[in-house]
Amino acid sequence: MPTIIVEGPKADKETKRELVKRLTEVVREVYGVHHVSVIIHENETENVGVDGELLSDILERRRGK
Amino acid sequence: MPTIIVEGPKADKETKRELVKRLTEVVREVYGVHHVSVIIHENETENVGVDGELLSDILERRRGK
Amino acid sequence: MPTIIVEGPKADKETKRELVKRLTEVVREVYGVHHVSVIIHENETENVGVDGELLSDILERRRGK
Amino acid sequence: MPTIIVEGPKADKETKRELVKRLTEVVREVYGVHHVSVIIHENETENVGVDGELLSDILERRRGK
Amino acid sequence: MPTIIVEGPKADKETKRELVKRLTEVVREVYGVHHVSVIIHENETENVGVDGELLSDILERRRGK
Amino acid sequence: MPTIIVEGPKADKETKRELVKRLTEVVREVYGVHHVSVIIHENETENVGVDGELLSDILERRRGK
Repeated sequence: MPTIIVEGPKADKETKRELVKRLTEVVREVYGVHHVSVIIHENETENVGVDGELLSDILERRRGK
Repeated sequence: MPTIIVEGPKADKETKRELVKRLTEVVREVYGVHHVSVIIHENETENVGVDGELLSDILERRRGK
Repeated sequence: MPTIIVEGPKADKETKRELVKRLTEVVREVYGVHHVSVIIHENETENVGVDGELLSDILERRRGK
Repeated sequence: MPTIIVEGPKADKETKRELVKRLTEVVREVYGVHHVSVIIHENETENVGVDGELLSDILERRRGK
Repeated sequence: MPTIIVEGPKADKETKRELVKRLTEVVREVYGVHHVSVIIHENETENVGVDGELLSDILERRRGK
Repeated sequence: MPTIIVEGPKADKETKRELVKRLTEVVREVYGVHHVSVIIHENETENVGVDGELLSDILERRRGK
């Protein structure tokens, strides 16, 4: 029974519904199993670091100029 | 020093207090160790997928009828 | 930059290659992002518990009779 | 459907069987649910750090003298 | 591309900015890689268990009475 | 008591010793705490996906030409 943990961004319910549906399809087909659990952790951009910087700072800089 | 990560539902403080107490007892007895850490992640039902569906959708359908 | 952690079974390289390719496609399309990391943890069936039993015991019982 | 991830030491099958059985009982009783998954990650003592030191170094020092 | 998951306390943005910057430096130097992701999970003290007790209970007892 | 989970590459003991020592120093200083746990998961390059490809394939291609 594979479990998929998604460390992703904030998302609305419809987005998460589609994510769960499609990730589960992939896992079922690739592993040949039926039962699949998905856990979605929604992370604020200030809780994610990319190459030494907060994602929130990177996004602000991109928008800013 | 085993660490237990619980991906569980929303819960009140008393429930989490009991969970930590009892999980720790089990881990101590089975592994024969003293120090045990527990981290509880409380997940909204719309952040959990079971066999391709959001848990929130499954629960709504069950209640609905 | 979403990260997907897969707690799955033992698998060969081709299976993991397909898993990474297809999970990444789904995450890109659903979240509308480009960069996606995937980490695959391959777990022995005796390291997975389903409803109180080791998966290895469940599979043995199914095969056995 | 709560999922319990155990970051624990190397253990034999009987130990893991008991761990899964008893952790599941606790989670069922405390949360009032039926379905519980457990994933056991067995970590070498040289892959665990406690207060800045490898667990393998701590254990060696204790044994040593 | 190493990923660091931090199960830590609540923190302000400046603290998380420094954490990401410095953890990334360490990981880059020790592993000799460039790309490093960090994910920070901020946990309430009532969601952390230390040796069988909620961290919130331990802190209250220390402070209090 | 923060816990740091490192999803990293294969490494020798000395590398892991240094990693634990230095990550712990950073976490102590930034959070102002004493107790820090680190868990290192060593992942094969064929168990890591970067932007849709196995890391093992990416590395082979780079070396190849």
